Amino acid sequence: MNITVSATLAANEEIDRRRRAGHRVLNLAFGEAGLPVHPALQERLSAAAGQNGYGPVAGAAALREAAAGYWTRRRLPTDPGLVVCGPGSKPLLYGLLLAIGGDIVLPVPSWVSYAAQAELAGARSLPVPALPGGGGAPDPERVVPAVLRARAAGRDVRSLLVTLPDNPSGTLAGADTVKQLAEVARELDLVIVSDEIYRDLVHDPDAGFLSPAEAAPERTVVTSGLSKSLALGGWRIGVARLPSARLRDRLLAVASEIWSSPAAPVQQAAAYAYTEPPELVERIGRSRRLHAAVARAVHARLTAAGVRTAAPQGGFYLYPDFTGRLDPSRAGRDVSTSAGLAALLLDAYGVGVLPGHAFGDDPAALRVRMATSLLYGGTTEQRLAALSAPDPLALPWIAASLDHLGEALDGLVAPRSARRGGPPPDRVVRCSDR
Amino acid sequence: MNITVSATLAANEEIDRRRRAGHRVLNLAFGEAGLPVHPALQERLSAAAGQNGYGPVAGAAALREAAAGYWTRRRLPTDPGLVVCGPGSKPLLYGLLLAIGGDIVLPVPSWVSYAAQAELAGARSLPVPALPGGGGAPDPERVVPAVLRARAAGRDVRSLLVTLPDNPSGTLAGADTVKQLAEVARELDLVIVSDEIYRDLVHDPDAGFLSPAEAAPERTVVTSGLSKSLALGGWRIGVARLPSARLRDRLLAVASEIWSSPAAPVQQAAAYAYTEPPELVERIGRSRRLHAAVARAVHARLTAAGVRTAAPQGGFYLYPDFTGRLDPSRAGRDVSTSAGLAALLLDAYGVGVLPGHAFGDDPAALRVRMATSLLYGGTTEQRLAALSAPDPLALPWIAASLDHLGEALDGLVAPRSARRGGPPPDRVVRCSDR
Repeated sequence: MNITVSATLAANEEIDRRRRAGHRVLNLAFGEAGLPVHPALQERLSAAAGQNGYGPVAGAAALREAAAGYWTRRRLPTDPGLVVCGPGSKPLLYGLLLAIGGDIVLPVPSWVSYAAQAELAGARSLPVPALPGGGGAPDPERVVPAVLRARAAGRDVRSLLVTLPDNPSGTLAGADTVKQLAEVARELDLVIVSDEIYRDLVHDPDAGFLSPAEAAPERTVVTSGLSKSLALGGWRIGVARLPSARLRDRLLAVASEIWSSPAAPVQQAAAYAYTEPPELVERIGRSRRLHAAVARAVHARLTAAGVRTAAPQGGFYLYPDFTGRLDPSRAGRDVSTSAGLAALLLDAYGVGVLPGHAFGDDPAALRVRMATSLLYGGTTEQRLAALSAPDPLALPWIAASLDHLGEALDGLVAPRSARRGGPPPDRVVRCSDR
Repeated sequence: MNITVSATLAANEEIDRRRRAGHRVLNLAFGEAGLPVHPALQERLSAAAGQNGYGPVAGAAALREAAAGYWTRRRLPTDPGLVVCGPGSKPLLYGLLLAIGGDIVLPVPSWVSYAAQAELAGARSLPVPALPGGGGAPDPERVVPAVLRARAAGRDVRSLLVTLPDNPSGTLAGADTVKQLAEVARELDLVIVSDEIYRDLVHDPDAGFLSPAEAAPERTVVTSGLSKSLALGGWRIGVARLPSARLRDRLLAVASEIWSSPAAPVQQAAAYAYTEPPELVERIGRSRRLHAAVARAVHARLTAAGVRTAAPQGGFYLYPDFTGRLDPSRAGRDVSTSAGLAALLLDAYGVGVLPGHAFGDDPAALRVRMATSLLYGGTTEQRLAALSAPDPLALPWIAASLDHLGEALDGLVAPRSARRGGPPPDRVVRCSDR
């Protein structure tokens, strides 16, 4: 088995190394939420510091009940008995691969770890392109032939994954796509794994989020966690909502042999978070607005440089396509692949991104993923200021980062006169604002 | 894949259910350390409550350095760069199976999760009986033919596991056995995975612990954690000491795709613990003495009832063999298997144990594992009292639990007159005290 460290974690560590060596690097590579822990959560963690029992594999009752309430308030009535908690949604997603078994349909592009996890689980992923502008969901019309072909070739395809809203593209698949996928999953008897870890960070709360668990409740697992909405990535807490006792039991069996349970004090803090107390609802609201503002500003820079990029709708990601926009006179090295483009951005312009290839995309497509959440500041003070600023873009450290990116784009892409088509930048910015 | 919840976690949850239903159940089934978190660790966790970054996959530098110091002080000079931390030693052991690949030699009996993890990892375990009285290590003389036979049959055997001291038997394989295994591993080119999570709980600090990492440093991975010595099972923190950068990198790759890192605040508390400050050294000393006293008392009860049981040398486990000792007139149900015996103990006597079968033992052998660490009390106050009592056995709740076990043994085993051979109980107790 050819295994390598997760591309996103590896890129982050490489950027840290360069910074320690004195280089100025803009970290657009790592999907860490980049915001401080809310004091209420710190208090809950401290209050639970005496808890050291392993506790139930499924998670503490209080946490399962709170998570069930969280989903119930989102049109997904949930039995706490069908909730399974884990040390992050990452292990839950891995455990689900083992619990469900068989191969899995993945949208292309999609988060770096899905395909890698499938390989570790001894499965194979079946890549199906996402619809343009509706990232995170495999094109429903292409799922059927792909699965039928794979099955005809003897493969045992049992599940289909969606990311709502999406990482890497920052877009949200629409209700029609989700409904179509639900029908396709029924027709093909596939379990749908719906990774909704960015759900509370959909920029426009009225955007009309549809979970496959609404459209196909009998076959959809929802995974989520607090790593993104409450910036608790380092606390390692995730939750899964299972459609059946049978699949829950299989997931619990896997969990009991691989990770046992999330850290007990963290579970107690998470139980509090999932009750959605006003101060945390407010924090998530502020975070969402900050993520939206900065992602849109980066989108505006890209668009102004003529780089095609879907307008961000959720989370803190963008997936620009530099095809046809690189200035040949400046490309002193291989920029015929996304990896080459990412390396050029890092080495020549001090901008860390991830190549689209890491997300399963065509290596020769000049697409990279930019994560904008590490632009909020390097200290807790700066990040809190960003959270409460009426115009975070005016904060000097955020403005400087945007300028750093702007300079890189100026250096990298063909001059304005060489641009072909594309809407004027301000119009695109408004479009992203819907 | 036929997957079921870890036997030990399942038994614990079943006991909890019966207790909630009003039954009096003595929990000898679950290997939780049963002691409170030391206040210094609670303070460290609270102080780190603001830490929410993912951090390095290998673990925070402070934790890796502290763990390296811990091993270095135990005759295992350690490069912090070859330490990998995980959310418990359980995920690390699972990750190692994937990182090493191939099949693994397991001692019989051995901890319930090793074989289950191998199955989840798509590997097969190769069971080799442990030497009597030296549990946790496969008999070196039987390893060679077993591996050669398996290889001749096309199996790819790459590693060998030892547990020092052992769970389930509570015994410690001697230095001679470890040296022999090191030679055998060299001869067969096997990686040795040495699970040393109970190392600091060897009852006699002068017992002469030899790690395979001393005898075969080039091929031994040591795993450990704070779940047992400092009772932090629910905090989920483990550490691994790798013999090479190559295997470390493979383990990091697996870790990055399955669990990312342990909870950041827990890592900070663990970093403190591994510096071995005086108050924690004292706590571990007290814990060790308590574990030894209660395990020996249970051993004395078993021996007094004529049930053959190896004298405990470390941790808080016993592995009694009821063969030939059950009273046929009292066995109103199937007691021809360890599972039947465990069920009888639970249903008729309110004593929860795990069947030897769960540890890979012959299902028809009437051996069960008893964990003695949940006898210290039901509250923090009782547990602290047990830790500081000159004679913990005299504490009423511990005495009552021992009496509960004594009554069960009186009911279950043949009367004294029916006993054949075996030394008188007081002599056996002294033997266990070496």
